[in-house]
Amino acid sequence: MTARLQLDAADDHLEHGVRERRFDLDRDGRHVPGMLWTPAGGAGPRPLVLLGHGASGNKRQDYVVSMARRLARHRGFAVASIDGPVHGDRRPAGLESDAPTVFLHFAQVWSSDDAMTDEMVSDYAVTVDALQALEEVGEGALGWWGLSMGTILGLPFVAAEKRMSVAVLGLMGLTGPTRARIEADAPKVTCPVLFLVQWDDELFARESAFALFEALGSADKRLHASLGSHGEVPDEEFVASEGFLARYLGAGSS
Amino acid sequence: MTARLQLDAADDHLEHGVRERRFDLDRDGRHVPGMLWTPAGGAGPRPLVLLGHGASGNKRQDYVVSMARRLARHRGFAVASIDGPVHGDRRPAGLESDAPTVFLHFAQVWSSDDAMTDEMVSDYAVTVDALQALEEVGEGALGWWGLSMGTILGLPFVAAEKRMSVAVLGLMGLTGPTRARIEADAPKVTCPVLFLVQWDDELFARESAFALFEALGSADKRLHASLGSHGEVPDEEFVASEGFLARYLGAGSS
Repeated sequence: MTARLQLDAADDHLEHGVRERRFDLDRDGRHVPGMLWTPAGGAGPRPLVLLGHGASGNKRQDYVVSMARRLARHRGFAVASIDGPVHGDRRPAGLESDAPTVFLHFAQVWSSDDAMTDEMVSDYAVTVDALQALEEVGEGALGWWGLSMGTILGLPFVAAEKRMSVAVLGLMGLTGPTRARIEADAPKVTCPVLFLVQWDDELFARESAFALFEALGSADKRLHASLGSHGEVPDEEFVASEGFLARYLGAGSS
Repeated sequence: MTARLQLDAADDHLEHGVRERRFDLDRDGRHVPGMLWTPAGGAGPRPLVLLGHGASGNKRQDYVVSMARRLARHRGFAVASIDGPVHGDRRPAGLESDAPTVFLHFAQVWSSDDAMTDEMVSDYAVTVDALQALEEVGEGALGWWGLSMGTILGLPFVAAEKRMSVAVLGLMGLTGPTRARIEADAPKVTCPVLFLVQWDDELFARESAFALFEALGSADKRLHASLGSHGEVPDEEFVASEGFLARYLGAGSS
C-alpha cells in the first residue's frame, strides 16, 4: 500500500507549545483529511493517540482539539484525528454542512454493510503508518480515544489493530445498523479499556451500553457513568481519559 | 446528649507522619470503639472523613487503615472509623471473631427493624461531634467513604447528616432486609457522590446497584464499575476515591 502524506504548510501553527497541523493522505484513490498535534520541537518516538470524532462533528471540532492539546501539552504525546465518512473535508461538494444535516446524512450511510467500517479501519491503519514515519512522531505506543461514532468506527479499528495499547470507548451500545459487526468485534478488543456511559443517554440506552461493555474481550476494563444526556460528557471524564491513556502509554519524549 | 471521649494513650503511634490512635466514646450507656488518624503535629480545623468498614471487617482492617493513612498523609485530612454492630470491639464476649462467623452474625442481626441503622447513624453523629471538638481536628468539612456494609449503614447517615459535603458509596444495591430504609433514604442523599460497583458482584447484583445509584437524590453523582467479585475493588478506585473526596473537601491544614 503506497500512501502519500502531505502536511499543509499554510495550516500549521503553534498554540501554547503544541504544534497543530492539517494533513492530507492519499492512497489508492482514497483521500484522508486529518489533523496532527505534536509537542513543539523534539523528536520521537513518542506515543500516538488517535481521536475519533462524533457524528455531525469533524476532525477539528472543539472537544477533539481540546483533548488533543491536553494530551500533547501535558503528556508529550502525538495526537491525530481524521474526518469520518460524510464529515468535515470528506463532505461531498454542494452539500450543507450544518450539524443536523450531517447527522442525518451519517444516519443514512450508516448501513449494515461492512464497507464503511472496513474503509475507516483501513484509513486509520494507513494514518498510523504515515504519521509514525515522521521524525517527530516515531514508532511509539498506540492509543485510541473515540466516543459515539468514534466507537462505532473506532471499536472495529481497536479490535483489528495489533499495535493498540489502550482505548477509551463509549457513548454507544449493542445497537444500530452495524450491531452485528460491533458484536463480532467487541470480543477481539483485548487492550485495557475505559468505557464511558451517559446515564441519561437519549440516543443509546444505558442497558445497551452495559451489554457492549460486557462483550469487550479485555481482561482489564472499567466503566464510568456520568449523569446527563449523550452530549453532556463532563470535563471530569476528559481528565480521567487523559490519566487513563497516560497510565498505559507511558511518558512522551520531548 | 453528653458523650465522653477517651483517647487510648497505650494505642497511639506515628506511622510515616500520620498519628494513629484508638478511642472509646461512651454516652447514654452506649459504647463506641473507634480509630482516629491525623497528620502528625499541626492544629485544625481540617476536613474529617469517616470510613465505614464492610461486614466481617472492623475499624482497623487493612483497607480501612490504608485509606485512612492515604487521606491523612496525602491530603492532610483527619480520618476516623468505628466498629459496626457485632464487629470488632463491639463483639459480645465469648463469640468467635473469625470473618465467616462475624459475617453470618451480621446477616442474622441485619433485620428490617430500623433500630440497628438508627443506632449507627446516631453513633456516627456523636463521633463527629466528639472528634471535631479536638484541637487537631476542628470543625472542618465532612466526608464519608463506605462500601457494602459501609453503605448499608453509611447511606442513612449521609442522608441524615446535613453537614456532609461528599460521599463515596457502593458495593450495595436496592436489596436486603433494610431495603425499604435504603430506598427511603437514597433520595435524601444530596451531596456529590462517587458510587462504586463490582461488575461481577456475587452478593449484590449490578442491576440492583444501578437501581440504588439511580435512586440517589444527588444532582452531582457518577458511577465507576470495575471487573471482579465483591471483594476485588481495584487499587484504581481507592486512588479515585482519594481524588474525589479531596476535590470536594479542599485542602487539609497542616
